Amino acid sequence: MADIARLAGVSTSTVSRALSGSKLVNDETKTRIAELAKSLNYSINIGAQNLRLKQSRTIAVVIPSDSATRQHLTDPFFLGMLGSLADALTERGFDMLVSRVDAEQLDSVSQIYDTGRASGIILIGQWRHHDQLNELALRQVPLVVWGAQLPKQLYVTVGSDNINGGKLATRHLLDQGRRAIAFFGDIQLPEVSQRYQGYCAALSEAGLPAREELVIAASFVEDGGKLAVTELCARQVTFDALFACSDLLAMTAINSLRERGLSVPDDVAVVGYDDIELARYFHPPLTTIRQPMPVAGLALVDALLQQIEARVSQALLLETELIIRRSSQ
Amino acid sequence: MADIARLAGVSTSTVSRALSGSKLVNDETKTRIAELAKSLNYSINIGAQNLRLKQSRTIAVVIPSDSATRQHLTDPFFLGMLGSLADALTERGFDMLVSRVDAEQLDSVSQIYDTGRASGIILIGQWRHHDQLNELALRQVPLVVWGAQLPKQLYVTVGSDNINGGKLATRHLLDQGRRAIAFFGDIQLPEVSQRYQGYCAALSEAGLPAREELVIAASFVEDGGKLAVTELCARQVTFDALFACSDLLAMTAINSLRERGLSVPDDVAVVGYDDIELARYFHPPLTTIRQPMPVAGLALVDALLQQIEARVSQALLLETELIIRRSSQ
Repeated sequence: MADIARLAGVSTSTVSRALSGSKLVNDETKTRIAELAKSLNYSINIGAQNLRLKQSRTIAVVIPSDSATRQHLTDPFFLGMLGSLADALTERGFDMLVSRVDAEQLDSVSQIYDTGRASGIILIGQWRHHDQLNELALRQVPLVVWGAQLPKQLYVTVGSDNINGGKLATRHLLDQGRRAIAFFGDIQLPEVSQRYQGYCAALSEAGLPAREELVIAASFVEDGGKLAVTELCARQVTFDALFACSDLLAMTAINSLRERGLSVPDDVAVVGYDDIELARYFHPPLTTIRQPMPVAGLALVDALLQQIEARVSQALLLETELIIRRSSQ
Repeated sequence: MADIARLAGVSTSTVSRALSGSKLVNDETKTRIAELAKSLNYSINIGAQNLRLKQSRTIAVVIPSDSATRQHLTDPFFLGMLGSLADALTERGFDMLVSRVDAEQLDSVSQIYDTGRASGIILIGQWRHHDQLNELALRQVPLVVWGAQLPKQLYVTVGSDNINGGKLATRHLLDQGRRAIAFFGDIQLPEVSQRYQGYCAALSEAGLPAREELVIAASFVEDGGKLAVTELCARQVTFDALFACSDLLAMTAINSLRERGLSVPDDVAVVGYDDIELARYFHPPLTTIRQPMPVAGLALVDALLQQIEARVSQALLLETELIIRRSSQ
């Protein structure tokens, strides 16, 4: 207010009176002071607005990080997704702002948008953040999430058909004559839970029950497969097949089975999930459920751009596909 | 000027006179108008400055893209580097802005810095851009490049010891009794050229010449290894070993050798370069030269932060290491 007073050549109390609409200040001065106040704000806004325009060619890709596990960005699925998004954004003329946000403070994601650093947000890693993501959607932050469609969902998801993926994997193992099929995955995660639904449905089609003792809550960490095999063997339950909810889980499990003298696929037939680049080069080459990675990047980007431009976009479910290789037959 | 006049409550000609220092305007008004003019600019600058500060927690990672080859971001080495950088930047409290820039217009990189979108730039993919990178360094853009140290270099590089890497690979193949060692790589690229120097040095130590007919200018594209094997076989030269300048080249070459009925390592011993994640899972597991990826991300980030803070940083050479697996023995 002191600045405005000095610049307008009046006293601070005049500015104060003028801004509060007092009749003690004449109209010419009142208008001048109002304009001056507005103008000073306005010029700051121009700055922000210009910067926002310049930066509108930026989309943020957020990968929540769990401070407990300190998961590093070495998981080939996440890296493949990053590459796919970078290619898709380049093709559409955008830069990619990669930000890892503490999973416990997911609402801080909106700052990236509010400050004009990005025109919208693609979030990879739905995990258990359903409620927080709904809040972000309510705040009208342009947002697309890679993950599963859930009941009472206010945000837009692009994901692959996890239920069918689980069905395809399990049916294939049943077709190979396997009957005791272990399941590796943490069913508290939405995508894994849907894969488990598919697994149960396929077993049910074959007249088999889903047996609790064959389900291991394996997590997507580097030695997840090894830990899961250890737990399964400790339960002393017989099994002749394994459906793992990521290729990395499947691969580390296979290496662990081999160390225990079990042969893949003869003793245990294995199906993974994702079809990461190295699945085909693995020994033995890995049977898996393919998530359509190159398509996924473009689908996420286009869903977000549609939302930014038209303020509307729909959830999208991409097809999953069974890729049969040596590890299961 | 009209705006300043209106806001100061004087005529435009008074503003004009005041700003040009005319004695016809009294000092009080002159000061007021100068301040007002400055203030309007100033507030815009505050906007930009605030945004720059807010954004100073962002580092740009630029991967030049060659419009001719339209190389996609699926190369596991680039993806591994992106992951390593994302982890390192997160650890240091920064976001990562990924930008692919046309390799022919590399000087446009400086815009990312000039507009305050990032505090500095890490460039992956030195390729043939030596002169352009020198120009960027002259323009005082905080910049660190992943690549080889070259003569007359004004920019800062962080890279691994390519000459020693080439030596280690070639010596190892010589130790296995191999004498006709093919070299796959485009020696016009600085890093590959240094690996080739190491290859020649190791051959020379063993009293062997570097034979031109064994060198194939293979490029880092998806089927590079296959094309290189085809060309080598077309030359009808005998060879019992192969040193490929990337793991992907080595892997696609091995698959191609296998299709031609040649066994690895019995007929052809193979050494790759990089030690990407899938090298150990490959069939046969791949002998390779490890570039220290987790260290590389932190080294690049810290070299750049040092440059931003202290306006000085030194080139850094990371050690390379021979990792012996089945493909070479």
